[in-house]
Amino acid sequence: MTALAFPPSASPLALGIDIGGTTIKLGLVQNGAVIKTLPSLETQEFRHADLLIGALLQSIVQIRRDHPTLAAIGIGVPGFVDVEQGVVHQLTNVPGWSDVPLRSLITKEIGLPSFVDNDANAMAYGEWKFGASADFKNILFVTLGTGVGGGLILDGRMYRGARSGAGEVGQMSIDPRDPDSVGHYGNFGALEKSVGNLQIAMRATALYTKAGHPHRSLEDCTPAALHQAACDGDVIATEIWRETGEMIGFVLTDIVWLLNLDAIIIGGGIAAAGEFLFEPIRKTIRARTNVVFSERLSIFPATLGNDAGMIGSAQLALDSIPTALR
Amino acid sequence: MTALAFPPSASPLALGIDIGGTTIKLGLVQNGAVIKTLPSLETQEFRHADLLIGALLQSIVQIRRDHPTLAAIGIGVPGFVDVEQGVVHQLTNVPGWSDVPLRSLITKEIGLPSFVDNDANAMAYGEWKFGASADFKNILFVTLGTGVGGGLILDGRMYRGARSGAGEVGQMSIDPRDPDSVGHYGNFGALEKSVGNLQIAMRATALYTKAGHPHRSLEDCTPAALHQAACDGDVIATEIWRETGEMIGFVLTDIVWLLNLDAIIIGGGIAAAGEFLFEPIRKTIRARTNVVFSERLSIFPATLGNDAGMIGSAQLALDSIPTALR
Repeated sequence: MTALAFPPSASPLALGIDIGGTTIKLGLVQNGAVIKTLPSLETQEFRHADLLIGALLQSIVQIRRDHPTLAAIGIGVPGFVDVEQGVVHQLTNVPGWSDVPLRSLITKEIGLPSFVDNDANAMAYGEWKFGASADFKNILFVTLGTGVGGGLILDGRMYRGARSGAGEVGQMSIDPRDPDSVGHYGNFGALEKSVGNLQIAMRATALYTKAGHPHRSLEDCTPAALHQAACDGDVIATEIWRETGEMIGFVLTDIVWLLNLDAIIIGGGIAAAGEFLFEPIRKTIRARTNVVFSERLSIFPATLGNDAGMIGSAQLALDSIPTALR
Repeated sequence: MTALAFPPSASPLALGIDIGGTTIKLGLVQNGAVIKTLPSLETQEFRHADLLIGALLQSIVQIRRDHPTLAAIGIGVPGFVDVEQGVVHQLTNVPGWSDVPLRSLITKEIGLPSFVDNDANAMAYGEWKFGASADFKNILFVTLGTGVGGGLILDGRMYRGARSGAGEVGQMSIDPRDPDSVGHYGNFGALEKSVGNLQIAMRATALYTKAGHPHRSLEDCTPAALHQAACDGDVIATEIWRETGEMIGFVLTDIVWLLNLDAIIIGGGIAAAGEFLFEPIRKTIRARTNVVFSERLSIFPATLGNDAGMIGSAQLALDSIPTALR
């Protein structure tokens, strides 16, 4: 027997970059896992978009020098992205960021295929390809943190909508007549104005004060602290999670009626509250939909954790390379 | 020059059947138009599903005899349909209708390719293929009448979801904490409990009574009558349409945030109120979304009118025939 004429090549290596409000995480991704975490950048250290982009490009040049087999670069950003053009319209917390053609800047400077998408879309893609949701065709991924983001896989493909903006679950309303909880872009009763990290902490301190525990500060009421409190049997913390789950359930119920999903994957810091949060979410959806919509609907936590953004954006970049060139 | 060896064949002829709560409409469809309306059946005349199905099959046999070139049969029904299996799970107002394998019954009896779908999906398909929305890729079609139905075209294809149930816009909520407007399947604040024909009439009579006009009955407050009243400058009728448009706008705003649509097409009886209804819908969505979502969003009335269901289901049936057999 002769030796294999065409040995299967090693899985391609990609750089995944997850731009967040505080930190820019960079990781080498192979086979759907971060195989090496690289030095991160602090988003707030840069006074202007140009400085941030300059530092980022410098990092990438160095990484490519150290890893010459790098095949592609994927970036997830917290903002509206024109995915086809690779342009990031705006980036929260970064002054001067306006319609930056990030993909062409990278391609020009580094000479590698690159891909830019909204961070929640990248996470959704990562969870779908490598997380627990690979068996499903119609998926909503929701990420719960400072704000609420989302990404959609519909009919077995990433769905982005007319201008790559789809999945803005946090802007959907749980009370369209409530002028006291207007979302960042004008929707009354926007979900993230009730279930963002800060809003949860505010509801908790208010409830503690009402119950005669006035000394709980917002810092005492982080999702992690409230989860611990609920585990310790704290009635107020448990009620906060129930209420939070119910409100998230209101919006998810509407999405289920509209899209008849197979699965809802929930990630982000708040999701760590586990069944304290998931139980009221499931209960709300089950009570408010019929059997065609709820019977085979799976609702479960994301599995890639903090790496989802890096893994997803790296994979989006790899999958964007025309097959003939891979 | 020789004669054309393979003359282009005539456009295929299909039978479109639109099953409604009161009437079953049948029409011969060619090139996206009803070229001949056939005698309808009265849904309520049949005491049991078997009798209705028997009468329907008898009609189809006769139609096929009269039109031997008939190529396919499409049916739209107001209920949950397993499109892949061609099974209608339930049919409102028809006793005994439970998991009827309508497609295989027709294929067995008539021997022609057939297709069964939810009525709003069929209408959405018709409007997309032959109405004003053919240029768009991401469309929500909404039909406003006794209830509120919907159908979705996403990424240029019909989207049905996990169990062909997608598009249930009428079950989405405008007030998830309101126990007084629970939808037919359990959702609090379900849209159709506020903007169905009857609910509009009830809101109108209440408002007329409050304003010192106690003699307006529900029958006086049909969508057509309220439209005429608004045209005549009636302040209460105008306000009813504004309120109705705003509530519809609440749900459409959420859908726009989720799906970043290109177009929303609105059909059904209520849509005839024209700008009295469309203006508050557009205004609500514009005020509550940002430019990425609203700038290129088109919102306009359906164009196929009462024929949309027949045209759409006939075309779904034709398009379901494998290309090689057409």
